[in-house]
Amino acid sequence: MNIVVTCDSNYLAPLRTMLLSLIKNNGHKFNIYLIHSSIGDEEIARTKAFVKDISEGKSELFDIKLSDDFEESTTTFYYTKEMYYRLIAYKVLPDKLDRALYLDPDLLVLKDIGDLYNIDFEGKHFAAAIHAFPGVQELNRIRIEASNTRIKNIGKKRGPIENYYNSGILMMNFKKLREDDRIDDIMNYVDETSLLGSLMPDQDLLNYVFKDSIKEISELKYNFDSRRFLSYHAIYDIDAEYVVKNTAIIHFCGSRKPWKENYFGKFDLLYKKYQLMAEKVYLGRMS
Amino acid sequence: MNIVVTCDSNYLAPLRTMLLSLIKNNGHKFNIYLIHSSIGDEEIARTKAFVKDISEGKSELFDIKLSDDFEESTTTFYYTKEMYYRLIAYKVLPDKLDRALYLDPDLLVLKDIGDLYNIDFEGKHFAAAIHAFPGVQELNRIRIEASNTRIKNIGKKRGPIENYYNSGILMMNFKKLREDDRIDDIMNYVDETSLLGSLMPDQDLLNYVFKDSIKEISELKYNFDSRRFLSYHAIYDIDAEYVVKNTAIIHFCGSRKPWKENYFGKFDLLYKKYQLMAEKVYLGRMS
Repeated sequence: MNIVVTCDSNYLAPLRTMLLSLIKNNGHKFNIYLIHSSIGDEEIARTKAFVKDISEGKSELFDIKLSDDFEESTTTFYYTKEMYYRLIAYKVLPDKLDRALYLDPDLLVLKDIGDLYNIDFEGKHFAAAIHAFPGVQELNRIRIEASNTRIKNIGKKRGPIENYYNSGILMMNFKKLREDDRIDDIMNYVDETSLLGSLMPDQDLLNYVFKDSIKEISELKYNFDSRRFLSYHAIYDIDAEYVVKNTAIIHFCGSRKPWKENYFGKFDLLYKKYQLMAEKVYLGRMS
Repeated sequence: MNIVVTCDSNYLAPLRTMLLSLIKNNGHKFNIYLIHSSIGDEEIARTKAFVKDISEGKSELFDIKLSDDFEESTTTFYYTKEMYYRLIAYKVLPDKLDRALYLDPDLLVLKDIGDLYNIDFEGKHFAAAIHAFPGVQELNRIRIEASNTRIKNIGKKRGPIENYYNSGILMMNFKKLREDDRIDDIMNYVDETSLLGSLMPDQDLLNYVFKDSIKEISELKYNFDSRRFLSYHAIYDIDAEYVVKNTAIIHFCGSRKPWKENYFGKFDLLYKKYQLMAEKVYLGRMS
């Protein structure tokens, strides 16, 4: 399986925790492509060794450094933040790959992701989950509407919530991305909005350029927002048992992160468990 | 290692979850003694098979049924609820055993318990944790007192809180219990209070008869009250990392239990994980 990750050196520790959770909870062999611009050779070497250690030699990390020598007509774009790299991964990864899964560093993979990886794209460029953010009144309306509704009907019941696809977990159809190349649209959007390098979320770009070509995956299974357990409970009537049985990926969205001091949240213990395991392997190798 | 458990058939499912957590997180060979009065032969046989399954044949469950044929001068006592069986376990278990660990069914064992098992009793009959229940004002006072205090000072800082030993996790010094036999005191207490069979907690009995002879163990390590994460945080400044690193036993105290419907709590996901693992093994064998 091909995994794409991007980060700078500040995020290498959470990245290791994420990769450990992925590898420990999946039997697959992973080729992990780390696209970056600024991580030093020594840190890359250590991260490669870490992946070998936790996978018992089965999985491998490859680094793709985007720097001065990567110049084309799209130069200005490629010099942007790591957050956009996922959208151009198909340009920089080996041509032979026909699909890959992009994963943010701020998540935990808790179950086998074979079904997600082998998804039928139905001709679309990407597959991603919708994070619905209803207002309070909206929430109440939906809650009533959905009160007798179980998980299988989520798609139908979403209705007029303001949706957009979250790009933190992104199945990428490289074949389609090459066939129906929208790099010019991406560049135009970037140029027009002139927000390059500012706070413009990569999600806006994804949702704008590919809005007709993203297949929806289950938020509760593959992009469970760690902050929203009680909201999910209110809307979808899920409980701890549902999460343990079904949730494959928990996403620590928002500015409060579980690897920071004084984080308290539904999944803090779970995160700490993986974090400490990852630190043990990593520091063990360094000492 | 000798483990003592007691329950009726209503508690067999949580008992299995507890035993699975114990065995999966410890490499030891366990002899588990189930003292009961009413569990049917078939259920006992299934529980024995379950223990073999989860320990890959390494550990074994023995049942000790206390019924009509178990009569002595102390008859009235022995006919009481399962909750008192822990206090007379030394009378009904094999003479050759010199120590055993009693465990309630409503807990999870998450780490190796070798240190607890091999505790130096220092001549005392039992070892148990104190569950401190300060009032709100008291809590604030302690919070201020303890604000710069870390875990190692808990014992010293407890001060005038109304303490008593919790009998849910109980290291039993069988050798001492035989040498300095207080069964008469137990019987006298039971007779005098005349509360036998009512709501009198076994803890009162333990704390009354053995108050001078219980060695304190760490509440945070070995008897972590699942309801009190935030209180512990306020008093002792512990966080998720502390729990993941140090807590070996989480005790689901109180009337709300994690195997029941609509339970939400700090450790609900953790409990469900073990519960579902236990159910899978148990139901797999039955089908």
